[in-house]
Amino acid sequence: MAPRKLRVAVAGLGRMGARHAINFLDRTPRAHLVAAFSPDAKELQWGKEHLEPYGVTLYDDYDKMILHEGLEAVVIGTATSVHAEEAIKAMEKDLHVLCEKPLSTSVDVCKQVVEEAKKRPHLTVMCGFSRRFDDSYRDAYAKVEKGLIGRPTILRSQTCDVHDPSGFFVDYAAWSGGVFVDMSVHDIDLTLLFFGPSIIPKRISAHGLIAVQPGLAQHSDVDNAIGIVEFHSGQIAYYYCSRMMAHGQEDVTEVIGTLGKVSVNLNPQDSLVNLYHEGGVTRGVPRDYYGRFEGAFVREANEFTRACLEGGEVRGASELRNAVTAVQIGAWLQEAMRTGRQICFDEEGRRVERAGL
Amino acid sequence: MAPRKLRVAVAGLGRMGARHAINFLDRTPRAHLVAAFSPDAKELQWGKEHLEPYGVTLYDDYDKMILHEGLEAVVIGTATSVHAEEAIKAMEKDLHVLCEKPLSTSVDVCKQVVEEAKKRPHLTVMCGFSRRFDDSYRDAYAKVEKGLIGRPTILRSQTCDVHDPSGFFVDYAAWSGGVFVDMSVHDIDLTLLFFGPSIIPKRISAHGLIAVQPGLAQHSDVDNAIGIVEFHSGQIAYYYCSRMMAHGQEDVTEVIGTLGKVSVNLNPQDSLVNLYHEGGVTRGVPRDYYGRFEGAFVREANEFTRACLEGGEVRGASELRNAVTAVQIGAWLQEAMRTGRQICFDEEGRRVERAGL
Amino acid sequence: MAPRKLRVAVAGLGRMGARHAINFLDRTPRAHLVAAFSPDAKELQWGKEHLEPYGVTLYDDYDKMILHEGLEAVVIGTATSVHAEEAIKAMEKDLHVLCEKPLSTSVDVCKQVVEEAKKRPHLTVMCGFSRRFDDSYRDAYAKVEKGLIGRPTILRSQTCDVHDPSGFFVDYAAWSGGVFVDMSVHDIDLTLLFFGPSIIPKRISAHGLIAVQPGLAQHSDVDNAIGIVEFHSGQIAYYYCSRMMAHGQEDVTEVIGTLGKVSVNLNPQDSLVNLYHEGGVTRGVPRDYYGRFEGAFVREANEFTRACLEGGEVRGASELRNAVTAVQIGAWLQEAMRTGRQICFDEEGRRVERAGL
Amino acid sequence: MAPRKLRVAVAGLGRMGARHAINFLDRTPRAHLVAAFSPDAKELQWGKEHLEPYGVTLYDDYDKMILHEGLEAVVIGTATSVHAEEAIKAMEKDLHVLCEKPLSTSVDVCKQVVEEAKKRPHLTVMCGFSRRFDDSYRDAYAKVEKGLIGRPTILRSQTCDVHDPSGFFVDYAAWSGGVFVDMSVHDIDLTLLFFGPSIIPKRISAHGLIAVQPGLAQHSDVDNAIGIVEFHSGQIAYYYCSRMMAHGQEDVTEVIGTLGKVSVNLNPQDSLVNLYHEGGVTRGVPRDYYGRFEGAFVREANEFTRACLEGGEVRGASELRNAVTAVQIGAWLQEAMRTGRQICFDEEGRRVERAGL
Repeated sequence: MAPRKLRVAVAGLGRMGARHAINFLDRTPRAHLVAAFSPDAKELQWGKEHLEPYGVTLYDDYDKMILHEGLEAVVIGTATSVHAEEAIKAMEKDLHVLCEKPLSTSVDVCKQVVEEAKKRPHLTVMCGFSRRFDDSYRDAYAKVEKGLIGRPTILRSQTCDVHDPSGFFVDYAAWSGGVFVDMSVHDIDLTLLFFGPSIIPKRISAHGLIAVQPGLAQHSDVDNAIGIVEFHSGQIAYYYCSRMMAHGQEDVTEVIGTLGKVSVNLNPQDSLVNLYHEGGVTRGVPRDYYGRFEGAFVREANEFTRACLEGGEVRGASELRNAVTAVQIGAWLQEAMRTGRQICFDEEGRRVERAGL
Repeated sequence: MAPRKLRVAVAGLGRMGARHAINFLDRTPRAHLVAAFSPDAKELQWGKEHLEPYGVTLYDDYDKMILHEGLEAVVIGTATSVHAEEAIKAMEKDLHVLCEKPLSTSVDVCKQVVEEAKKRPHLTVMCGFSRRFDDSYRDAYAKVEKGLIGRPTILRSQTCDVHDPSGFFVDYAAWSGGVFVDMSVHDIDLTLLFFGPSIIPKRISAHGLIAVQPGLAQHSDVDNAIGIVEFHSGQIAYYYCSRMMAHGQEDVTEVIGTLGKVSVNLNPQDSLVNLYHEGGVTRGVPRDYYGRFEGAFVREANEFTRACLEGGEVRGASELRNAVTAVQIGAWLQEAMRTGRQICFDEEGRRVERAGL
Repeated sequence: MAPRKLRVAVAGLGRMGARHAINFLDRTPRAHLVAAFSPDAKELQWGKEHLEPYGVTLYDDYDKMILHEGLEAVVIGTATSVHAEEAIKAMEKDLHVLCEKPLSTSVDVCKQVVEEAKKRPHLTVMCGFSRRFDDSYRDAYAKVEKGLIGRPTILRSQTCDVHDPSGFFVDYAAWSGGVFVDMSVHDIDLTLLFFGPSIIPKRISAHGLIAVQPGLAQHSDVDNAIGIVEFHSGQIAYYYCSRMMAHGQEDVTEVIGTLGKVSVNLNPQDSLVNLYHEGGVTRGVPRDYYGRFEGAFVREANEFTRACLEGGEVRGASELRNAVTAVQIGAWLQEAMRTGRQICFDEEGRRVERAGL
Repeated sequence: MAPRKLRVAVAGLGRMGARHAINFLDRTPRAHLVAAFSPDAKELQWGKEHLEPYGVTLYDDYDKMILHEGLEAVVIGTATSVHAEEAIKAMEKDLHVLCEKPLSTSVDVCKQVVEEAKKRPHLTVMCGFSRRFDDSYRDAYAKVEKGLIGRPTILRSQTCDVHDPSGFFVDYAAWSGGVFVDMSVHDIDLTLLFFGPSIIPKRISAHGLIAVQPGLAQHSDVDNAIGIVEFHSGQIAYYYCSRMMAHGQEDVTEVIGTLGKVSVNLNPQDSLVNLYHEGGVTRGVPRDYYGRFEGAFVREANEFTRACLEGGEVRGASELRNAVTAVQIGAWLQEAMRTGRQICFDEEGRRVERAGL
């Protein structure tokens, strides 16, 4: 008899939710996508075409979907504002949860999700920091773990999106939590990977500007931002996030240690092709983060499924508590940028007027 | 009701067959792996662990397997010597066929397979030239089709494997057809892609040597070979194949046109990571062709399945007749190398003592 | 009759001074090295071997050297602490001056040099920001000037030296002005190139740490530092400087505009060679800044000479007043790091408690 | 007293000759350019402007120039057809000779030069295989000498020029000796470097075509050619030369050994700049061989000068006899291509109908 498959539902069928649905439907052999939910008619129409023919039941009510018979796990890819509520509701129905990042743009709400998960240790509850499942980041991490760069000391990481002139990101800024929470949260999670999850910030500085999306001003957000987080452990991370790239997605990380360095994606590329022409030699670049990280999302789906079925940790996933820490640091960066003031902490992580030197 | 899935069997569970089995089992959503065959006890044991639990019926007799109820398609990954026979038997049972390359090391036997397929135009019968399904080759081809390099004129292509000191390739040489048939056949198929399938050789030269595998001499084979094929169309392809690489798999192609050039995989890499250390900056290289082409094999499985279910061509596949042409050119290269003599052809492709200039 | 050559003297025959001497002796066709000065016996001994045989008169007294008959120009490569004094003395003798950077670690002293130069507009007086003479930076600048990246908005620049465990840099820190003044001053000068010389800082943040040279603590300096300078013009520069690299010199600059980006030296290399070996593919990296910028120093010598002989500007040189601005910004970064406080300015560049947002 | 300088004359002030003249005038500290010759009025005019003001005496008669008082060495950059004659005349006047490659397109004439040089061992007589003076080739050679790639076994080398639609190369083909002699001669000389100067060809194959310069047919030459030289030592070199590149100069070499590989210039670049734009990431490529090898020519001038002054070998130069071997192999490749027949040799290097296998 074939080993049983995990019965999964996906909440949200927008850009990211639809990708999760397809990944769990087609590219996660041990999962069985049984249900999907969207509050949006257009998204449901997409579901009718791409999911229903394969036996997936569609819902326009989240509460009903989580009652779907035999359901074991929910993947949450709805709007950020409902992530936490949906995650908690699912846990209350004893369902495993894979929730898109961030759990919430509010640190307190993030903490509620973590608290709820602590009460149910038999459940697999994770936040979708997908870069942890990327081959290249795993390769880099393995090299660092082997000691090839000595002690990781400086981390540079950037999340840079292609410029989208449609105005989408202006509306989006109303509830995204700001660029540091929305974009750099990935780079912060990578910091927790390479420096360890228990690092305590000492001083945080951040600067930003609006270069191409004037409408962002109304939401106190920016389209280019740079921040530095200095940790009490004698380590520093610095971040750049931008929505202004002409060439495509460029998410780069460097970890600089006392004995060497690893870089990830320093030279972005969309294939192994170079075109030689009168103007020189040109290579393409992925247009968006999914072009860069598609493989990571597929692996995430598979690793989550395995853990749900077999118990134990999701191999290589970010611990759930990191989802709080990353949003917290992102929010502090955003605050430091918005107020034009550094933020300081003592060695226990309490905010103070000024950090000791 | 879910669209039905194609019922597929895999013949051969060795290195390549096992990969095909897993790909059709887990990574081809529209396929249903129902059966698998191997004449080898060890391979069958692998099948018991990895396939049987998922409902795959195992056979130690190919003839019985192709009678499996409801079977629609066979993927042939057995030893080259039985490819053609198994392909023909499958067609006789009205089964679609995806056969690993080469159909045979004998051109005549290859032709039999093609003849058999011609009789059954409703069947999808293809030879597994997997590079045609690789994203980077597709990207390169799209650029050439757009005219970005003008007329493709010179093609350089190499298939270079990591050195395997185990002696495996010495035994293998007994029946592989030689390095040009076994390895360069991929590069020749790419030539048929970029130059078109109807090109006619004019002169063929080839040279080889044994550098690290002295045992190859007994099979008149070599571990490094270089060949040139000049076509009557005013185009030249040249090939390098080697089993001596220290660093890993390095399969490179350049297509040079009158207005530009495309290169594929000029800088092999196993991830997007660079390690900076006292000796400089180092990146890894895939260890073998599957490390380089895994994605292509998965796409091949999916495209083959789609064509079987929906009819029509396998998108992007090499035409079946190319499987004859490629082996034929490979065999001529091998002959030219072995005999130390150029081989010439007239404009109809007939061998002549000397090609007109 | 051959066009006359500029009669040049070099002050200081240490690491950098000796290179200047050789460049003016051998690689600057229109210059004639007539004299050299060093207060150091060992350096003078080097001069006896490498300069004296070619007719260069050696001095152990700077004041005497600048009275050398017919002398027209002095190149100052002595210790930073005497740069300004020597530059001013040379101008007082009506000599052209090429002074190694920085003019001084004191902003006020830098200003004195500039004031002195203003009084003598017929003299060529420049500070050696050598990167301005580097082919790659010139290429990048030409692309930016052509508008290929739109408006330059974000500048990332780093100066990273190979780790020198000898303790040299600990002593050096006593008088270097700190890493931002000593190292990042180059990156700041590049900011003045790409953003324009009149940009006014709005807020400055900086962080640093000691990872490998504990002795630096006694001089309140660090071996890794990161700083951000936000300008009132809606532009941001951020810098990383380090003396901890395992692999060699890595001086990288990226200029990110509203329509594109240029990078300079993102992949440092010491030649066009790659070595393929069992561990992957490796390229070497220059060991120090001279390995990276030797060509720039030679061009600097030639351009300086041309301007002295023909009058007019030194093509491509940084304006002398930038030497003040760059040290000033470097000093502010150092202060921001040392005090753990941001530094703010109003739109006229006056320090204020807090910058308006 | 300054060490004396070598008194040098340059013959030929065309493209290459003018560069030599400038290099010996300005960039070779131990040389003193005293005279220059050209039979061409336009070239002499150039000399009047660029050389005469610096004390260089111009001649329109080679025989008179080599009688210039005190002259010690001649650099020959005239048309290939007079290289040998001029070189021999210079030696007869007891002058050192640096002759542009090739000595002649005739092997016999090349040999005469070598014979003449043998009679005068006190003279420095060299042929300008400039790549031997290139930093990257020297780096590659040092790595090979250290044993990092094991035994060099396969060499791939290409000389590819940018397409020049002016028709220049059609006229040029009348007397260039053909592409293998004119272009691949550099790659052949590199083969003599990496495989050693005593290797004996066993079989030679070559193919070519005309893709963009139809006029070449009248001179039996081509604009794209590929050749293979198999040596009795169990080594193979293969070459590609082309005058069809859209992007610029691309001279690549790979040396593949039993334990590794070195590549030189696999990714041609004209600076360390990348431009990121809507179409991807682009880098420039040198437009011509001087853009790639300028540094090598300067070093060549300096090393030649040093050897003339001090005696002994020219450090790193190709032995003079290689100039015969390289032209000889180039001529055989050209013959093999033109006749459409392989050329074979026995172990003593005598041509035979067919090489033993």
